[in-house]
Amino acid sequence: MNAILLAHGPLRERVSAALTGFVYSNGGVIVAHDQYVDQERQRYFTRLEWRLDGFKIPRGDLADRLDEALRPFELRSVLFFSDVVPRIALFVSNLSHCLYDILGRWRSGEWRVDVPLVVSNHGGLADVARRFDVEFREFPITPDTKSDQERREIDLLRQKGVELVVLARYMQVVGHDLVAAFPDRILNIHHAFLPAFPGAKPYHAAYRRGVKIIGATSHYVTADLDAGPIVEQDVIRVSHATPVDEMIRLGRDLEKVVLARAVWMHLQRRVIVDEGRTVIFQ
Amino acid sequence: MNAILLAHGPLRERVSAALTGFVYSNGGVIVAHDQYVDQERQRYFTRLEWRLDGFKIPRGDLADRLDEALRPFELRSVLFFSDVVPRIALFVSNLSHCLYDILGRWRSGEWRVDVPLVVSNHGGLADVARRFDVEFREFPITPDTKSDQERREIDLLRQKGVELVVLARYMQVVGHDLVAAFPDRILNIHHAFLPAFPGAKPYHAAYRRGVKIIGATSHYVTADLDAGPIVEQDVIRVSHATPVDEMIRLGRDLEKVVLARAVWMHLQRRVIVDEGRTVIFQ
Amino acid sequence: MNAILLAHGPLRERVSAALTGFVYSNGGVIVAHDQYVDQERQRYFTRLEWRLDGFKIPRGDLADRLDEALRPFELRSVLFFSDVVPRIALFVSNLSHCLYDILGRWRSGEWRVDVPLVVSNHGGLADVARRFDVEFREFPITPDTKSDQERREIDLLRQKGVELVVLARYMQVVGHDLVAAFPDRILNIHHAFLPAFPGAKPYHAAYRRGVKIIGATSHYVTADLDAGPIVEQDVIRVSHATPVDEMIRLGRDLEKVVLARAVWMHLQRRVIVDEGRTVIFQ
Amino acid sequence: MNAILLAHGPLRERVSAALTGFVYSNGGVIVAHDQYVDQERQRYFTRLEWRLDGFKIPRGDLADRLDEALRPFELRSVLFFSDVVPRIALFVSNLSHCLYDILGRWRSGEWRVDVPLVVSNHGGLADVARRFDVEFREFPITPDTKSDQERREIDLLRQKGVELVVLARYMQVVGHDLVAAFPDRILNIHHAFLPAFPGAKPYHAAYRRGVKIIGATSHYVTADLDAGPIVEQDVIRVSHATPVDEMIRLGRDLEKVVLARAVWMHLQRRVIVDEGRTVIFQ
Repeated sequence: MNAILLAHGPLRERVSAALTGFVYSNGGVIVAHDQYVDQERQRYFTRLEWRLDGFKIPRGDLADRLDEALRPFELRSVLFFSDVVPRIALFVSNLSHCLYDILGRWRSGEWRVDVPLVVSNHGGLADVARRFDVEFREFPITPDTKSDQERREIDLLRQKGVELVVLARYMQVVGHDLVAAFPDRILNIHHAFLPAFPGAKPYHAAYRRGVKIIGATSHYVTADLDAGPIVEQDVIRVSHATPVDEMIRLGRDLEKVVLARAVWMHLQRRVIVDEGRTVIFQ
Repeated sequence: MNAILLAHGPLRERVSAALTGFVYSNGGVIVAHDQYVDQERQRYFTRLEWRLDGFKIPRGDLADRLDEALRPFELRSVLFFSDVVPRIALFVSNLSHCLYDILGRWRSGEWRVDVPLVVSNHGGLADVARRFDVEFREFPITPDTKSDQERREIDLLRQKGVELVVLARYMQVVGHDLVAAFPDRILNIHHAFLPAFPGAKPYHAAYRRGVKIIGATSHYVTADLDAGPIVEQDVIRVSHATPVDEMIRLGRDLEKVVLARAVWMHLQRRVIVDEGRTVIFQ
Repeated sequence: MNAILLAHGPLRERVSAALTGFVYSNGGVIVAHDQYVDQERQRYFTRLEWRLDGFKIPRGDLADRLDEALRPFELRSVLFFSDVVPRIALFVSNLSHCLYDILGRWRSGEWRVDVPLVVSNHGGLADVARRFDVEFREFPITPDTKSDQERREIDLLRQKGVELVVLARYMQVVGHDLVAAFPDRILNIHHAFLPAFPGAKPYHAAYRRGVKIIGATSHYVTADLDAGPIVEQDVIRVSHATPVDEMIRLGRDLEKVVLARAVWMHLQRRVIVDEGRTVIFQ
Repeated sequence: MNAILLAHGPLRERVSAALTGFVYSNGGVIVAHDQYVDQERQRYFTRLEWRLDGFKIPRGDLADRLDEALRPFELRSVLFFSDVVPRIALFVSNLSHCLYDILGRWRSGEWRVDVPLVVSNHGGLADVARRFDVEFREFPITPDTKSDQERREIDLLRQKGVELVVLARYMQVVGHDLVAAFPDRILNIHHAFLPAFPGAKPYHAAYRRGVKIIGATSHYVTADLDAGPIVEQDVIRVSHATPVDEMIRLGRDLEKVVLARAVWMHLQRRVIVDEGRTVIFQ
């Protein structure tokens, strides 16, 4: 079983040696140590993973002892344990390709994750959830009920112990309370190469503009629509001969793969968000 | 409802005009007409799709009448009708990512197709088939039983009206009888960028060679292993820091997307096989 | 020697047969016939290339005779002859990578083209032009002189018989008169994946937004800055660890390749512009 | 001015801290520190770059002092100084695209490098060298003269202080003596996606096999033809409609970009060769 530390802060001399020294001197074996230095802003980012078998500090004390060790370096850090299976909730509307894809990755054992809940503003995909034996909860949303419904969603997510919310082609703008309840823990897939074609119907806009490449973008959701920190993007070539419905078809594969990569990176504890951008340790 | 003609043969003057003339003069409306001329070999390939509403020739007579019209041009042709839902069988062993992917595309309505059957040499993926309400048939294969088992598979495929066999990471070399029973109608996915790394364990071989890009290849199965006509390939970038198990993980997404594209192209009647190569009308 | 016809207009029955019939009945041999039908707008686009050896219509009469034959179909067409070597002018400022690239393609014989002229608003790249034995003309531009200078440039371009103007990282907005003098015949390279990051300093903007992929776009110049019909785009993957100056470095290769592909397509007479978009016959 | 250390060896505890400690304790400022651990083989690779202004150890003593500090860790290391301009020689035959490309990068100042010499087995590209004011030396090679000629080439390369030999589409197999004289310091570009299509005429082979993607590979030259450690690869999509001469045309851009990236990585001291594979710090 491993501990994984994500940390970032100002670049200080010997911060790296302090981190590895902490592990070595307590009997840990480092299995991965990724670092990134933003030279321009003189900031340090790291992901450190080490084996806890035989580690001298008890698991319950580890966060405190790390805090203590890192205090002089002013790092912000989060600690994870590899034996904790992350719990994610999927939000969908009526497009099912990302939903099928993620549920398949879960049930096939490709992802070590739990999916206790699918939330939707429609009932249309209840059957898909049933097929995969996962609870499906419908929260119809109107401008009037939105705020109340999202409060209920937040309660449910907490009650289910959900750590990450995945908007798997969820056709609703997420409200401020929900965003605030899961900061940097809601992943969206937008069906365009952001910042090109934000908002609705990006494939139609791409067609009209005559672009030769279309894309998809997975990003953390912030209060500012389609402007959150980007985790993953990918593209595919099109031509004048690609009508909008063919773009939509091609885009589905792009969307599901890009979203899956972003969720994977998050769950592997490889993403740090800093000032609207992501640092991702591959 | 549309008719779709795939035809190829020697390049002759006015062959294109003869084809479109046949449609126009019988009251058809052309919705797609793709052509390709292999200048070096002076060969002509075409895919012609037209609406049958109000077409003067009855559907039952169409193939004969086309034969007659095309005889002077020595074209080999196949005729399809768009209201026939193609029936495909999936062959799997114990890797499920391509199986989940195709079953999801089917059940979500992304593909207009029927999947009456999943065949396996193991029982491991029976649960996946059950989840999607599709019949699962296990045919354990040993060197001794292979020939008999494949004969039973052929019977079953015919009985189910299967037109295309998809080897969705099926870990068996398909025997000659099965190949002969479904010429250019068995699609395989090989987890390498053919002709690089044919055979077993291509990701291990790719790692050892230190390539910077890995790939996947979908091809029709012929008597010659991994040498059949290629339908689709794609690649993904790796580095020295990508261990074999990470290649395998990354490769899964590549494999399922490449295989799905190949199956789609086949089902859209967009692929012509000629002398070991494919002509694909996008 | 070949004739190449680019034509487009409303989709009419038998337009394709009329075109090929015109060639065949006059003794021509078709070497390439590309067609595209925009089904939604019911428009027809074609590129037809045929050998003129033994063709019954004299070259001087060909345009008129074609007009006559195509009149019933209301096609807009342009006719080219493959023995005419196109003459292009390069506009540059102080970045030389696209300039070196295009001059190299010309002098190595990769492109069958003439480059009689390099125009710049600075003197900095005069040496590069000299190295390749091409005339270099400096037209310093201030807000006051711009209009006059561009008029002189237009005169010079006409006098040199220039057919296509290539803005090879030219750091000036081209004025309306120059655009009007070369409609759909000025190709620009923008160092971003349009419509993302139009305007100045796109790499800086891309860095700030934290995109995971950057791009380059070659488009025809219209009165509307960075909004002209796109001919070619391509992208390259970056990460959080790619600083702006590294994006600029990586972008250079992207820019020169994307611009070269666009120029090549134009010179091969493979591009038709229609309602702000391009149809490109590969 | 910076020092750059490339080092690799067995993975030992605190090796990273020892390296950074050496720099810090002598007054250096680290500007880049890349590390890679091959977990399977328990090997450590690093690239460390630091500013030498105010560094306590004189430049002349640095290599020795580093050796001393690293001895307990059994690292193999090479030290570079950023103010030394690397000298490279280009070997060509009669294809000029890579030659133009590299000479352009040099003369435009994109690369901080010296190119004192172009070597060829033909006289055909002498003009290109002259255009860029670089010495051109012709060494005609026959089976009989090969060994002697290469010995002369080695002498010339040494006399010119050449550190890296770039085979820029050089159509000769390099002999053992030349390879031995420049171990891991001869970069070749092969016009295929190795290990697919080694040897002569790879585009023809790719066409015959009907692949949907073609590639180029830059690798260090070893005694084993086309089997040296790969530095960079890239690919481009083709189709049934891409004839061999079009592959050759498309391939040129691929070849020149892939070769240029490999040379750049080498010159940035970002490549470590280990057991037939490369570790590349991006």
